[in-house]
Amino acid sequence: MNRSRLEPLGVPSSEYGFGSAAEPSVRGQPAGLDRWLKKQITERLGDSSPVRVALWDEKPDAQEGRVTVQFTDRRALLQLLANPELHFGDLYSAGRIHVHGDLLMLLGQAYAYAERHGKLPGWLERGRRLAPDLSESRRNIHHHYDIGNDFYRLWLDREALQYTCAYFADPDMTIEQAQQAKMHHVCRKLRLKPGEKVVEAGGGWGGFALFMAKHYGAHVRSFNISKEQIAYAREWAGRETLTGSVEFVEDDYRNAASTGAGAYDVFVSIGMLEHVGPGNYPALGKLIDSLLKPEGRGLIHSIGRDRAERLNPWIDKRIFPGAYPPTLREMMDIFEPNHLSVLDVENIRLHYAETLRAWLARYEENVDTVRSMFDETFVRAWRLYLAGSIMAFVRGKLQLFQVLFARSRVNAIPWTRADIYGEDAPGRSSFE
Amino acid sequence: MNRSRLEPLGVPSSEYGFGSAAEPSVRGQPAGLDRWLKKQITERLGDSSPVRVALWDEKPDAQEGRVTVQFTDRRALLQLLANPELHFGDLYSAGRIHVHGDLLMLLGQAYAYAERHGKLPGWLERGRRLAPDLSESRRNIHHHYDIGNDFYRLWLDREALQYTCAYFADPDMTIEQAQQAKMHHVCRKLRLKPGEKVVEAGGGWGGFALFMAKHYGAHVRSFNISKEQIAYAREWAGRETLTGSVEFVEDDYRNAASTGAGAYDVFVSIGMLEHVGPGNYPALGKLIDSLLKPEGRGLIHSIGRDRAERLNPWIDKRIFPGAYPPTLREMMDIFEPNHLSVLDVENIRLHYAETLRAWLARYEENVDTVRSMFDETFVRAWRLYLAGSIMAFVRGKLQLFQVLFARSRVNAIPWTRADIYGEDAPGRSSFE
Repeated sequence: MNRSRLEPLGVPSSEYGFGSAAEPSVRGQPAGLDRWLKKQITERLGDSSPVRVALWDEKPDAQEGRVTVQFTDRRALLQLLANPELHFGDLYSAGRIHVHGDLLMLLGQAYAYAERHGKLPGWLERGRRLAPDLSESRRNIHHHYDIGNDFYRLWLDREALQYTCAYFADPDMTIEQAQQAKMHHVCRKLRLKPGEKVVEAGGGWGGFALFMAKHYGAHVRSFNISKEQIAYAREWAGRETLTGSVEFVEDDYRNAASTGAGAYDVFVSIGMLEHVGPGNYPALGKLIDSLLKPEGRGLIHSIGRDRAERLNPWIDKRIFPGAYPPTLREMMDIFEPNHLSVLDVENIRLHYAETLRAWLARYEENVDTVRSMFDETFVRAWRLYLAGSIMAFVRGKLQLFQVLFARSRVNAIPWTRADIYGEDAPGRSSFE
Repeated sequence: MNRSRLEPLGVPSSEYGFGSAAEPSVRGQPAGLDRWLKKQITERLGDSSPVRVALWDEKPDAQEGRVTVQFTDRRALLQLLANPELHFGDLYSAGRIHVHGDLLMLLGQAYAYAERHGKLPGWLERGRRLAPDLSESRRNIHHHYDIGNDFYRLWLDREALQYTCAYFADPDMTIEQAQQAKMHHVCRKLRLKPGEKVVEAGGGWGGFALFMAKHYGAHVRSFNISKEQIAYAREWAGRETLTGSVEFVEDDYRNAASTGAGAYDVFVSIGMLEHVGPGNYPALGKLIDSLLKPEGRGLIHSIGRDRAERLNPWIDKRIFPGAYPPTLREMMDIFEPNHLSVLDVENIRLHYAETLRAWLARYEENVDTVRSMFDETFVRAWRLYLAGSIMAFVRGKLQLFQVLFARSRVNAIPWTRADIYGEDAPGRSSFE
């Protein structure tokens, strides 16, 4: 247990909120209306808030522990008041809102505000019954994952390109070590053995499939609909001479059934469920049931929630269209109708906060390269997304569930979990 | 992992199904109707079944690996055909059905039959929204737990009188060791520290409350509505000179709020949720929320299901009136509405099969004493209940969930689970 890395939040190394983003649409001396609009915001924040609001002609509050949100024009003020959940992201990305001070602190204050005052309009809603079909899924995945492999390589771990929550078995691990530890942790939970057949749904750049083949002697068939990722994964498998053990299939996981009913010892999915949509969970469970051998088992690793909520509308619009982090209750639609038994659930949400911190730090180290690849609006949007995600995990708005399961009738299940934490487990020594 | 203790099922040491139970109501030479009724049963079983059916004038099949169900009268045949789920238990208890051979094997065959042929009538039903009020709960609990402390002491573990699933950290543990290991396992999951305040809902004979005080230095307030159990627990606390650390309250857990809002570091409940009723789960969660300090946490240990089903009607009628083992989905009604976050779920159902085997073996060792305390019908009913429960866990019809939780907003949560399995964990050495 190491809470000191999370609380209090450190001030990020770079100065957030500055940049040469798109020019605001309107400017000039603030008028009475602008002052009145500002007052609407400051009154909501209250006097004790460390958050200050500044109009375009005002100086930010440079005092330690303060953060100033500065507007560049009246329309930005109006838009934020109209729908903060949606518009803050766009205004920040466009450089029409500047944040002077610690962006993470500001986001933490926003979460605290939402908790105190009930939820902001449109924030809390009973989970949407999202059920994207194959072509919707293709569009959604393309939007996010086909931005360019070179971009993700700038800030993800350098060894396995894992764009999912790492496992800091030892809190002092680097992101590279923690991603290796995550993959070991999953394989150990699955009790993966040499020669076993694994089907992976949503394999990213192939890092985990190759890891299972290399370190556990598994035969892996990995499905992914991101063209860019599949191309990368295949090239990587060739370099590692693992093409005999790992097959990367450019297809939707829903088509995996055609590769053989009852053919697999293990089903595994790391960070794909967020894109499946709750309406598709019963079908996913049915697919798992059809893919697994009688004594097969599986693990689903996914961002989740303690309570059903729709995704933040800005994230949904700009970053992850169609994504939805489910509650455990919603996830039960995968297991219950399909005679699957939940053996083990672990919630490692604080590890995702830590993972995102590592990513954000590396992102800032390479921010000039990102800017040259895209533009300042992109730079700021992704900064906000990464920083906002840190705070969502720190404040408990998002969870990270690893769910291990087998068929209800199977007794070839682990007797205890002690073997996961055996002598040679990653990071084990630091807990003794 | 040790499956060999569970499969194949060993033949129990005593000869089941014999006894001097109540005389059947009708007898005489079987007639054509009796043969026809028997055929209805044997045809359902099929030729390959190891189960044989015998009428009162027929000899049981003594062949190894066979089990014979013998009826003593026509009404027994009719009753079984009409509603096997309900009447088998009563007929067996009354000695109007004799089982020659392995009772466990027969029950295993019954489960397999139910799985193959869809469910038996009345077996599968969407979970009832049970919500017993305080007086119903008192009646229900009195029915089962106030049978007599001396009776339970005949066959439960001798050290802590735990009438809940043990944890065989090392598969060779005795039931005494495994119950100690269970209590350590729960305390370790809770990261229980000296001086912490614990509220326990449903404390049985007080064994776990006293264990937490003795081994972890906790201050425990334990609620129970079983008069007999509370009297025993208080006497025990006195003997152990732990009356300063443990208070046994003869009251419903629902009244715990009056002992102080936000007063407790830990909420714990081992084997009580089965009696709460799903309709009361949101209120239970609200109570937990009100009892815990801001950084409090809790653990609920309960029998559960992979899919919602009502309890077997015979068990509901004769053994556990009003009981209901919930699915994880149903349990979420405790956590979701009350801002509680699930951190860890462990399913140890095979440990309950092992626990029940140990209880049944000891029950049979002391069966003459049980008979002298009650009568043969009681002896047979409890034998069937224990044996049937073994098979329910072995066949995956019942699960055992331990659910660890904290508030969604709290970051003082365990970083990993490795510490649960540290060097000094019970049974740790056997896994290395």
